[in-house]
Amino acid sequence: MALSCELRAGEFRSRNLAGCIAALLLVAGVGEAFGRTAARSPAAALPSQVVELQRAALAATTAADLARSLATEAGPRPSGSVGLARGVEWGLRTMKDLGFENVHPEPVTVPHWERGIADGTILSPYPQTLALVALGGSIGTPESGIDGDVVATENLESLAKLPPDAVKGHIVYFGERMLRTRDGAGYGKTVAIRGKGASAAADLGAIAVVIRSVGTDSTRLPHTGGMSYKEGGAKIPAAALSNPDADLLERELASGKPVRLHLHLTARMLPDVESANVVGEVRGRELPQEIVLLCGHLDSWDLGTGAIDDAAGVGNAMAAGAAIAKLAERPRRTIRIVLYTNEEFGLSGGKAYAVTHADEAAQHQAALESDLGSGKVYALLTALAPDDGALAAEIARGLAPLGITLDASKPAAGGADISPLKALGVPILDLAHDATSYFDFHHTANDTADKLVPGDMAQATAAYATAAWILADRPARLARVPVVAEKP
Amino acid sequence: MALSCELRAGEFRSRNLAGCIAALLLVAGVGEAFGRTAARSPAAALPSQVVELQRAALAATTAADLARSLATEAGPRPSGSVGLARGVEWGLRTMKDLGFENVHPEPVTVPHWERGIADGTILSPYPQTLALVALGGSIGTPESGIDGDVVATENLESLAKLPPDAVKGHIVYFGERMLRTRDGAGYGKTVAIRGKGASAAADLGAIAVVIRSVGTDSTRLPHTGGMSYKEGGAKIPAAALSNPDADLLERELASGKPVRLHLHLTARMLPDVESANVVGEVRGRELPQEIVLLCGHLDSWDLGTGAIDDAAGVGNAMAAGAAIAKLAERPRRTIRIVLYTNEEFGLSGGKAYAVTHADEAAQHQAALESDLGSGKVYALLTALAPDDGALAAEIARGLAPLGITLDASKPAAGGADISPLKALGVPILDLAHDATSYFDFHHTANDTADKLVPGDMAQATAAYATAAWILADRPARLARVPVVAEKP
Repeated sequence: MALSCELRAGEFRSRNLAGCIAALLLVAGVGEAFGRTAARSPAAALPSQVVELQRAALAATTAADLARSLATEAGPRPSGSVGLARGVEWGLRTMKDLGFENVHPEPVTVPHWERGIADGTILSPYPQTLALVALGGSIGTPESGIDGDVVATENLESLAKLPPDAVKGHIVYFGERMLRTRDGAGYGKTVAIRGKGASAAADLGAIAVVIRSVGTDSTRLPHTGGMSYKEGGAKIPAAALSNPDADLLERELASGKPVRLHLHLTARMLPDVESANVVGEVRGRELPQEIVLLCGHLDSWDLGTGAIDDAAGVGNAMAAGAAIAKLAERPRRTIRIVLYTNEEFGLSGGKAYAVTHADEAAQHQAALESDLGSGKVYALLTALAPDDGALAAEIARGLAPLGITLDASKPAAGGADISPLKALGVPILDLAHDATSYFDFHHTANDTADKLVPGDMAQATAAYATAAWILADRPARLARVPVVAEKP
Repeated sequence: MALSCELRAGEFRSRNLAGCIAALLLVAGVGEAFGRTAARSPAAALPSQVVELQRAALAATTAADLARSLATEAGPRPSGSVGLARGVEWGLRTMKDLGFENVHPEPVTVPHWERGIADGTILSPYPQTLALVALGGSIGTPESGIDGDVVATENLESLAKLPPDAVKGHIVYFGERMLRTRDGAGYGKTVAIRGKGASAAADLGAIAVVIRSVGTDSTRLPHTGGMSYKEGGAKIPAAALSNPDADLLERELASGKPVRLHLHLTARMLPDVESANVVGEVRGRELPQEIVLLCGHLDSWDLGTGAIDDAAGVGNAMAAGAAIAKLAERPRRTIRIVLYTNEEFGLSGGKAYAVTHADEAAQHQAALESDLGSGKVYALLTALAPDDGALAAEIARGLAPLGITLDASKPAAGGADISPLKALGVPILDLAHDATSYFDFHHTANDTADKLVPGDMAQATAAYATAAWILADRPARLARVPVVAEKP
């Protein structure tokens, strides 16, 4: 116990003696809840395997090393790109190097959208060049570009209240600002503008949309991200301004003079491309056909090198699996590491996995995705069947030495890639990463390897390894979770 | 006094009661040092004009409003550009709006370098697109670009120690990292790489240079800035990588494999352009022919809108002048506000002013330039004749209520624009801005109006107004300063 506390003190600057004592009090007497094969550290009452996993993970920088390697060696990995193909190769090669079993690609057809160039200028009242990027999936403009007067609105709701004449023939600007929160909730509140703003504006006769970046920074690097057009609706070009450029546009609008923009985008769709999910396993010792799925996604947006989104998740999942593989004894069930292809632009990998493994869905004990950056984990959320509710507290006790608490206020949302599994009743757990700064970099050119914090990722690795091991070694199989109707 | 303290408490978050009391103790009994016409606040013993200037400046956001207006309405203002011409127009118009006297342009011929495009990629071992910009003044590459293997070095000194064969035919990468300091001293330590690196490498047979940006951020927005070629030497293209891209290049170099780059720059020189310094005055009541010069520069680099470099300085100087103009009585001497053209790319405006006003140099009581961003002022430095040394402490006592202390450890350096005046013996003062974050944004696309902090600029305005008023109202004329041999 003392040893464990000393190690943690070396790893986490924010921990102190009081926190250490509190954590140890929390875990006291928990031993009986764990699987009967778990050898126990007598003082901490944590399974020795959990103690060992946390010790090993916290002493290493494996997750950050892996994420940095992927970002450096494969580079940007947008759906359909050569970079994504390099990412798949990297995944296969690196999984084998780490000693995973049953390493193989699972073919997935992915879309191929090409960004091209995006030029935007304010023509009047004060000429300025704008830092903007096409939203993923946007059509291009005519070769000569589009000129139009700007009508400003906040979001989809305020757009709907504008008089039709105010929108028709205009370029719509959506100005709502994403709020910074630890859990990233601000993203959910504004991302619909990015996804649906173009079609909503096109329905009212707009000729293009520009949005304030869905991001929390004040850097002139706009945030891209997926958008889609309503089936059968008009398609108009859609671009995102960096936050400082949105501020500039708003200052020009505040002059009271008409504000006229020129936009030129060469974005376009190309034919689909063959890609692959990359799968590797740490086979279980008793129930190898039953699976705890740990995952991240290999693809990224094209502007940066996808270090935090989601090489970090790839690194966390692989490092956690590798730590479990190094234990003296395997857990009962198989840990399956899945590196999904194309999460960002239509979820091709996640959907394909659920189809390919439909027969096996009932064998999935649980699934966890790491896809909220490289920050520390601060909370556990679960989406379990009612009969398995006690497991949440059991896992939380295992995570307590890492400074992680149970958040029972809402169910786990699950990463996007595992949402199709969730829809099949597979139990889902979220390890909530501190995303306070994540949306400064998310989907921008600034998503690069220097943003990775190895110590924070080591803590996250320890958390994923702990949760996965408890789930995998638990004697009982988890019940399927009643599926609440929601969008897949 | 109480009123003054309350006002300051409202303006400066960092100030507290203890600081306020300390400041008041510092200024107690200082009255006799000030000019005899100065009416005194009985408690603080500061001239009532200084108290009023500080009160008025701290209660307003004039400097930030002006800087934001220049950045918004004129946009980027590189030497020779349409934006710079708009900046000159803005300066003339705004000086008149503020009620300055004798507002006029003074013609200056400025160079016109065009950035064009800059593409850079790592070809091998791991293909990556680099965020890089041409350095100001660089030649372009051939149309097909330049391919070359990279030889890495730290700085000019380490380059000189490389074996000649290691450099010849290579692209030289300079990797020295600028350190973050409050006074910006890290800039002086690395900027020579930017200015002279290309010629130093060309002398050894290099085909191009790429440097780590001279900047303190970790954002993928490279820092441009002026460079020049040695007369008669070979000219090779020169570009700056953003810090994250320099990190990436170093990771590829660390692989031990040869690193090959492709560079394509279309930068070029165009014919000179006519521009102008913009001059306006607050005429003195007794000695109007004697001048206290307050200045900033109108031009900026082209990547951002030059909000902190140097619309901030323009705003500080103009707002300080405007505050003095609003006093019930003018100071003895004239406050001359000069907004220099083209500081960034060869100092055309500063050199031209010194030539145009050579006959008047002896009439310049002192000169102060604001050209280190929009941060608070924390120190006063002076370069005065030995007989006038006591004036430094006198001005410092006037600045003490603003939290500014005298730094007698070294002489004032003076802004670049007033260096030609300094060379003529004009006394120089520096109000040292807190530049801790200045070099995160300096010479990048990120130098935009959202980076301006109105409260900090109000404090700086108060400081410039205080120093200028004391210098202008002081009965005695300052002696000329012996010129120490240095580069002009």
